Amino acid sequence: MSDCEASASDGERDDTLERELREHGLFEWLNLDIDVVEPGRVVFELPFDEKFANLASGTVHGGVTATVIDTASGFALRSRFDDPATARLTTTDLNVRYVRPARNDLRVEAEVVRAGGSIGFTESEVTTVHQGETKTVATGGTSYRLFRE
Amino acid sequence: MSDCEASASDGERDDTLERELREHGLFEWLNLDIDVVEPGRVVFELPFDEKFANLASGTVHGGVTATVIDTASGFALRSRFDDPATARLTTTDLNVRYVRPARNDLRVEAEVVRAGGSIGFTESEVTTVHQGETKTVATGGTSYRLFRE
Amino acid sequence: MSDCEASASDGERDDTLERELREHGLFEWLNLDIDVVEPGRVVFELPFDEKFANLASGTVHGGVTATVIDTASGFALRSRFDDPATARLTTTDLNVRYVRPARNDLRVEAEVVRAGGSIGFTESEVTTVHQGETKTVATGGTSYRLFRE
Amino acid sequence: MSDCEASASDGERDDTLERELREHGLFEWLNLDIDVVEPGRVVFELPFDEKFANLASGTVHGGVTATVIDTASGFALRSRFDDPATARLTTTDLNVRYVRPARNDLRVEAEVVRAGGSIGFTESEVTTVHQGETKTVATGGTSYRLFRE
Repeated sequence: MSDCEASASDGERDDTLERELREHGLFEWLNLDIDVVEPGRVVFELPFDEKFANLASGTVHGGVTATVIDTASGFALRSRFDDPATARLTTTDLNVRYVRPARNDLRVEAEVVRAGGSIGFTESEVTTVHQGETKTVATGGTSYRLFRE
Repeated sequence: MSDCEASASDGERDDTLERELREHGLFEWLNLDIDVVEPGRVVFELPFDEKFANLASGTVHGGVTATVIDTASGFALRSRFDDPATARLTTTDLNVRYVRPARNDLRVEAEVVRAGGSIGFTESEVTTVHQGETKTVATGGTSYRLFRE
Repeated sequence: MSDCEASASDGERDDTLERELREHGLFEWLNLDIDVVEPGRVVFELPFDEKFANLASGTVHGGVTATVIDTASGFALRSRFDDPATARLTTTDLNVRYVRPARNDLRVEAEVVRAGGSIGFTESEVTTVHQGETKTVATGGTSYRLFRE
Repeated sequence: MSDCEASASDGERDDTLERELREHGLFEWLNLDIDVVEPGRVVFELPFDEKFANLASGTVHGGVTATVIDTASGFALRSRFDDPATARLTTTDLNVRYVRPARNDLRVEAEVVRAGGSIGFTESEVTTVHQGETKTVATGGTSYRLFRE
């Protein structure tokens, strides 16, 4: 961990992630925004948009919530590679529990539980602020295959 | 089931689903296409598009795969309501296993395992055709809270 | 929550849970022990036993870990009913990520994320102490159907 | 697959699995019985026993169902190694959906979706016979880390 922590404030890495958010069609469409990138922990903001709400209920589509969980988890795991910009990894499992309907901006926080030699695990929480109170919208867990040199 | 099956070829329902796919921002952006809608079973086609591929690997983002699994599962469960167009339901759990990277058009098939009084369950398979061979890209399972009158 | 918290030290409830642990064939066989029972949070101890270790590796069988996660989650949700002793609920989804092999005593902590009118959600962490250090062995998430009067 | 199929009736392997079921404390306690072992597919029978039923409802504990799913999945993946008796693998993810309560003997069938170089995936179905009709009790999916030579 110590090497990773040493690079926590590494401006180069943040630039890479931010550029990726802007250049990736899906992330740009979602309008995902980075709030925090630390080794092993990433926080994203997702402003609510009607285009990804369900027509009948007006709540955020479950696929959108799953996408931000998977994305934040992947970025969190990449932050635990020596060079996050060139890290190679792929999701093997994604689990989401939809705890409450979401009708506002979302905040997703992903934390690495373990980044081993070949497998990584994260836990995530998605929250929203409703009438001044922070509420859990979804919780998630992921497993990734990590390809280290 | 027999009532449901009787309405399998119900044109009105298909129109509702198809209109929803066109009018929903997310589905339109994905360019999701209905292939089959039967009671308890739905097949969607998702043409590959670079905009939802990962920048480094060129493979479909896991969130996109999760979105089509959740969408197909919801439509499959709605087909088991007396009136799918007004069915009320919400995902409680979404699990996806990413079996292979996907670089081509996807086909997602969702089947209802059980549509009970208050909970519904589906199983899904996402496949792609690679060099003339059909390959499993992902498998998924969902649980939904069903709100029946 | 405040009403629940008021009953946190309710001796009657703890007795019910402890009696259940002793009288249930599976729990007795596992030798599960209650450490903490609070409203919305339960901690169990599981002493390592060779009988539930895998023959080749000597590590705890994944089914045992899953069982303690499901059990702790159910007890945590029951603690959020007016009368935990008569609470009716059933697991709908259980997800476990096996983060590390376990060769020692286990501690499982389950916390309620939400106990709604008809659905409940928990998150769990299973840890072990290895060479003086606490390590995460598994993380889990569950969904339950709650039957309230 | 054809090489694997050639070894489907390999008596040595079946003996190993059967011996393991008898010698493993957990499997013996459950009284798990092998019905089918083929390359990539395993069927187990679990006779109902009150000792693993929940006290209040009389239904099989979710942890028992999870255990048989994980066990059958592991055996199915081992059948896809050159030498199943010495195969090394470990569960990374286990997901179970509890579709119906179970009060009778269970049958669990696990099928390999993919057994790759380093990761394996299975899908499982647990059924019971109730009043002459076969009903799905649970569905499951697993991911395993495979350690090939």
